[in-house]
Amino acid sequence: MTEPPDTDAEKQRRIEQDLMDAVLSSFEDTADERLKTVLRSLTTHLHAFIRDVRLTQREWDAAIAFLTEAGHITDDKRQEFILLSDVLGVSMLTIAVNNERSGNATEATVFGPFFTEGSPHAELGDDISGGARGKPCWVEGTVTDTAGNPLPGARLEVWEADEDGFYDVQYDDDRTAARAHLFTDERGWYGFWGLTPTPYPIPHDGPVGRLLESTGRSPMRASHLHFMVSAPGKRTLVTHIFVEGDPLLESDAVFGVKDSLVKRFEDQPASAPVPGGREIGEQGWTRTRFDIALPPDDQ
Amino acid sequence: MTEPPDTDAEKQRRIEQDLMDAVLSSFEDTADERLKTVLRSLTTHLHAFIRDVRLTQREWDAAIAFLTEAGHITDDKRQEFILLSDVLGVSMLTIAVNNERSGNATEATVFGPFFTEGSPHAELGDDISGGARGKPCWVEGTVTDTAGNPLPGARLEVWEADEDGFYDVQYDDDRTAARAHLFTDERGWYGFWGLTPTPYPIPHDGPVGRLLESTGRSPMRASHLHFMVSAPGKRTLVTHIFVEGDPLLESDAVFGVKDSLVKRFEDQPASAPVPGGREIGEQGWTRTRFDIALPPDDQ
Repeated sequence: MTEPPDTDAEKQRRIEQDLMDAVLSSFEDTADERLKTVLRSLTTHLHAFIRDVRLTQREWDAAIAFLTEAGHITDDKRQEFILLSDVLGVSMLTIAVNNERSGNATEATVFGPFFTEGSPHAELGDDISGGARGKPCWVEGTVTDTAGNPLPGARLEVWEADEDGFYDVQYDDDRTAARAHLFTDERGWYGFWGLTPTPYPIPHDGPVGRLLESTGRSPMRASHLHFMVSAPGKRTLVTHIFVEGDPLLESDAVFGVKDSLVKRFEDQPASAPVPGGREIGEQGWTRTRFDIALPPDDQ
Repeated sequence: MTEPPDTDAEKQRRIEQDLMDAVLSSFEDTADERLKTVLRSLTTHLHAFIRDVRLTQREWDAAIAFLTEAGHITDDKRQEFILLSDVLGVSMLTIAVNNERSGNATEATVFGPFFTEGSPHAELGDDISGGARGKPCWVEGTVTDTAGNPLPGARLEVWEADEDGFYDVQYDDDRTAARAHLFTDERGWYGFWGLTPTPYPIPHDGPVGRLLESTGRSPMRASHLHFMVSAPGKRTLVTHIFVEGDPLLESDAVFGVKDSLVKRFEDQPASAPVPGGREIGEQGWTRTRFDIALPPDDQ
């Protein structure tokens, strides 16, 4: 049904359309073409959202208050805007559009806030836990190109939380633990001792935590171990591996889980030979395998 | 051209779609139905934006840094998130969807950050400038319903900047000036002495100012005088009047101008009779008229 012109509804529609057009036109003189494109698209989608839900003044007030509180809780150790991006799937979508499918290349997932530059160097076979508590885990695999050719000298950065759910940087004592970088050998192989991953919550004592609570969502992340893998001429991969059977796989707070990244972490019997002949004691250990394929860096 | 399934492009499309579906599903248990609707719509539009522009990782980093800086510059006297909403037309659109066209009702515009509760009471005909500098302006009109019936006892709040472009609350000395509330008489009439409006910039020394600069936009607001008008059973109106001939009418930084709100401010000859017999001196004065129609409060 088309409405006759000049009804209140038609006037209203035109007011809203004219306003959006005025904002789009205001970016006309932007020197940077890419910035112009991004701002025009942002404006279009943001206005469509407000028109669609008929956002109330009180909801607008609440949005301003939410952003203000997020800004005030953010400091050099806490980043509430990244958390917000994470729980809305925005971080994961940005990862996805920047790591488009390329044959059988290993999939990417979120970077997270706990990577640090300058991790310790580990030799192949070393224990990277640095005293962090948890059940030992032997992790190994190969790094290849997408045709299966080994990539010798590929650099792997690995980092993870301890069994209490905390990364080293979350402690006040400047410790470095459960993080390292290492390089594949001439066969493209790598192996190291880490910790069997355990689940932990994203920081949830701020506005993003309240948002999760009011929507009945859990702040828990599925158990995982972080990787960043790079080799000359290849696209750098930022990813995790997840633990098969973890009940949190279905409800990861940041939507980071991909089926191809879920790995079996096998509990090892006391009789099993321990890689590197390490002295494990009675706590038991697990092992897992993660073979990584990097696509060409075509950017 | 439809693509065959299982190409990289098709897999990529499915990854992005599945991710959005997962985020939408995560809000399934939200108890508040309205919150669920708003979050689902926000997610849909935000993801569409990122997919459309193929947001780069560096641009995502820049967005996080922008929001962080906006949060850190915001305090109880400075609200960068409201400025951001203003310059993207989001504030004005929210006003528009909450003040839908209703016959010949007077149009609304942005509230702005400079209203204060507890303004001084003025009698009809009083000077509200309170010592603020500027060219005197006699403002009068009527407040009626949309059928033209006068509304006696309607409350008007009025506030404006001085000729230096500052509101009283922007000074450090706790002054109250160029703001008041008054009530229409039994004929729905009001009149007061204010100041002839002059242009001023929105605060532009923060991230929003840099955004305007990088898009070639001016931070200037068109000259205006604020009104908030209320009467029992009527929708409260928040609006401004603008000055005919102001060159900034075409480029108001917050998109607040509407044709129906542009008024003639007539310079008065020295010989003109002065309302209330006020002693003006040599500086001259202007006069304007603003007749206001309030729609029923149907919420």
